[in-house]
Amino acid sequence: MSEIPYKIYLSENEIPSAWYNVRADMKTKPAPLLNPGTGEPLKAEDLYPIFCEELSKQEMNNDDQWIDIPGEVLDFYKMYRPSPLVRAYCLEKALGTPAHIYYKFEGNNTSGSHKLNSAIAQAYYAKKQGLKGVTTETGAGQWGTALSMATAYFGLDCQVYMVKVSYEQKPFRREVMRTYGATVTPSPSMNTNVGRKINEQFPGTDGSLGCAISEAVEAATTQEGYRYVLGSVLNQVLLHQSVIGLETKAALDKVGVKADMIIGCAGGGSNLGGLISPFVGEMLRGENQYEIIAVEPASCPSLTRGSFVYDFCDTGRVCPLAKMYTLGSNFMPAPNHAGGLRYHGMSTILSQLYADGFMKATSVKQTDVFAAAEQFARVEGILPAPESSHAIKVAIDEALKCKETGEAKNIVFGLTGTGYFDLVAYQKYNDGVMDDYIPTDDDIAASLSQCPKV
Amino acid sequence: MSEIPYKIYLSENEIPSAWYNVRADMKTKPAPLLNPGTGEPLKAEDLYPIFCEELSKQEMNNDDQWIDIPGEVLDFYKMYRPSPLVRAYCLEKALGTPAHIYYKFEGNNTSGSHKLNSAIAQAYYAKKQGLKGVTTETGAGQWGTALSMATAYFGLDCQVYMVKVSYEQKPFRREVMRTYGATVTPSPSMNTNVGRKINEQFPGTDGSLGCAISEAVEAATTQEGYRYVLGSVLNQVLLHQSVIGLETKAALDKVGVKADMIIGCAGGGSNLGGLISPFVGEMLRGENQYEIIAVEPASCPSLTRGSFVYDFCDTGRVCPLAKMYTLGSNFMPAPNHAGGLRYHGMSTILSQLYADGFMKATSVKQTDVFAAAEQFARVEGILPAPESSHAIKVAIDEALKCKETGEAKNIVFGLTGTGYFDLVAYQKYNDGVMDDYIPTDDDIAASLSQCPKV
Repeated sequence: MSEIPYKIYLSENEIPSAWYNVRADMKTKPAPLLNPGTGEPLKAEDLYPIFCEELSKQEMNNDDQWIDIPGEVLDFYKMYRPSPLVRAYCLEKALGTPAHIYYKFEGNNTSGSHKLNSAIAQAYYAKKQGLKGVTTETGAGQWGTALSMATAYFGLDCQVYMVKVSYEQKPFRREVMRTYGATVTPSPSMNTNVGRKINEQFPGTDGSLGCAISEAVEAATTQEGYRYVLGSVLNQVLLHQSVIGLETKAALDKVGVKADMIIGCAGGGSNLGGLISPFVGEMLRGENQYEIIAVEPASCPSLTRGSFVYDFCDTGRVCPLAKMYTLGSNFMPAPNHAGGLRYHGMSTILSQLYADGFMKATSVKQTDVFAAAEQFARVEGILPAPESSHAIKVAIDEALKCKETGEAKNIVFGLTGTGYFDLVAYQKYNDGVMDDYIPTDDDIAASLSQCPKV
Repeated sequence: MSEIPYKIYLSENEIPSAWYNVRADMKTKPAPLLNPGTGEPLKAEDLYPIFCEELSKQEMNNDDQWIDIPGEVLDFYKMYRPSPLVRAYCLEKALGTPAHIYYKFEGNNTSGSHKLNSAIAQAYYAKKQGLKGVTTETGAGQWGTALSMATAYFGLDCQVYMVKVSYEQKPFRREVMRTYGATVTPSPSMNTNVGRKINEQFPGTDGSLGCAISEAVEAATTQEGYRYVLGSVLNQVLLHQSVIGLETKAALDKVGVKADMIIGCAGGGSNLGGLISPFVGEMLRGENQYEIIAVEPASCPSLTRGSFVYDFCDTGRVCPLAKMYTLGSNFMPAPNHAGGLRYHGMSTILSQLYADGFMKATSVKQTDVFAAAEQFARVEGILPAPESSHAIKVAIDEALKCKETGEAKNIVFGLTGTGYFDLVAYQKYNDGVMDDYIPTDDDIAASLSQCPKV
């Protein structure tokens, strides 16, 4: 057996004490958010009615390379971090590949995903600002679960608007949030003006993420002492998630390994942006080269088939405009079990890095993703989330290419979470009734045609 | 912040290389298994038709203090071990107790429980003996999940007989096992003689654990190249689970802490027996003193309200007789969400240690257990399994006693697994519709009266 252990653990005092802000090293900064009414760039203070002040500042901060992680957040991180970087010896053996495969496993906390890294930071700043609570929306439920854990820890109220169809079809996700003390409301609800209006217009609707966002934003801005929080896409979220990449880099350095290739799944970009940040930082500063691959579902291919334009961040068109790779804010992904990757756009940071050639992107079909997930689970033990399994699929493909060429590449991928709440999807796969929906060029052109002209 | 970290991790080379066999240090050995027909003690070779040879020998081995862990099993252990020993700083703070609370967390693997420690050992010996596969039964599903992971790893066939009502009510447990390649059959089935007979006698029956055991044993003994495996109660299982206690002891030694009190939940005894083994070993050898507490559900109180007599290990009365604390093999626990603790008897090793005064036992009510589980989850993050939460409840009670007395006791408990598949139970608790069933003295006397006269 090699000298590199199965799990490369850092010690508690090796948890990063500051988040890395990749924007500071980007020559072309991500384009600013625009006011959808005036078309003017937004300032931090324009966001204060919606977001906490400190988080609004982080959102706009293109200058500071490092931002200290508050002690209270670090204390919480110590409950589940450093997360393990695992050498996938068993997968390598099963594939017969000379490649060395590593994965950063972020599922080793109860929320079951990397979302907790930003949830605890956002809850902390809300607490520090003296707020009573926060509101948010959730679709698949990973973000709502993480946020409810974080708010329970700081004694904040947490109001989650959960897309009605998920609320009904994923009762266990809902119960976890309730167990952590959150109020979970099926959206559209009768709690908000926008909810009542939509219920009136579309009686019996199943709801949508766009509607849930609109309700959560209204709830935040109409209740004293509340703000809205979001689990992906935003610059502040990628900043907090840099802890994933910093630990990955530190662990590789510890065993003297240089990554050749870094692979992550990409929905809104929270995991991928965090994982790659210190590596891409080295590329931006001209210190090193890495091959970085974003993996998205073929059913929702914003990087590989979208346009790099200004668009609304939400389907309800109440949020600011962001310049990003988008399929159009009213693009409707078909039912897809990687719920966390069903977002029409992409982080503005990742969009700019992709446009500037710092990373590649590829899309994969759902049934291929589940085949890879099952292959991985049987040899590595961990039952992966469907989202994470997009990265697994491409890591396996790349390792098999190495088998052809005989190269011993160091392949690193992000295993963002566990699939305990996704067993309906696994069942469909096991029963052979899962289908592979891919949007047509016409579908994408139609939704893109409705992007605002800026 | 104290010098003791939140998580005390051992390094990979500190995983024990041998299991500790507490029977070697017991002055009064556990009573032998008896042939139910002849009343004669069984020899290892009497078990060969049912169990693997090596495991049969381990079952009967009262002499060797240490048994080497095979290299192949150690390699698998490295995927998820050493498991963390966590200092529960957040829980201590929430309780305002001077006590120091530690828990050994065995839920950090996909099977979600400690069961994997023995599953991988049993699968290894089956592989080594050249078998094609193994059969087993599962009720709550933890054991079936662990076994399907272990057999997938060694490429063995795995046939799980799952109590029909669980099969239908817990489809996600079933899907996990299928994802790992196991065949899951609702019991009673039409695959076995005993299953067909029961289906004929009781059309539409929901099944029972006793029936599933009988089917799994028949399937093992009637197929070429198959043996039966079991996840608790047996001496071999406690032997494999000693890895939990050995790591706990090593981690405490590493930070210079002596446990005052060790608390574990007790169903068949697999977790508690493993956790306490090295500590009780010191007591048996007169080297040290610990306060050891077994916690069982008030609905199935074998240690606290049962009798220490010979009884059948299974409801179907096809297995050998064991001398143990029992409620009678036809005792029917009321519906209870700690499915893993619904066993009428108790490990013969733990029964003897309890009879000899080396440990205490207490029973707790279900709603109190869920209240403790929720309190723990909100501050420590981890969503605990209902089984594990029995230990949490008593650890909290003991820590609150320390608050009264001002003692800074070191309290260690076993957190055996996660509650991801138990959210129906959490929902009942959150909705206030969970009840606390406690059997009457007459119920227990009636089932005890049917124990065999030996």
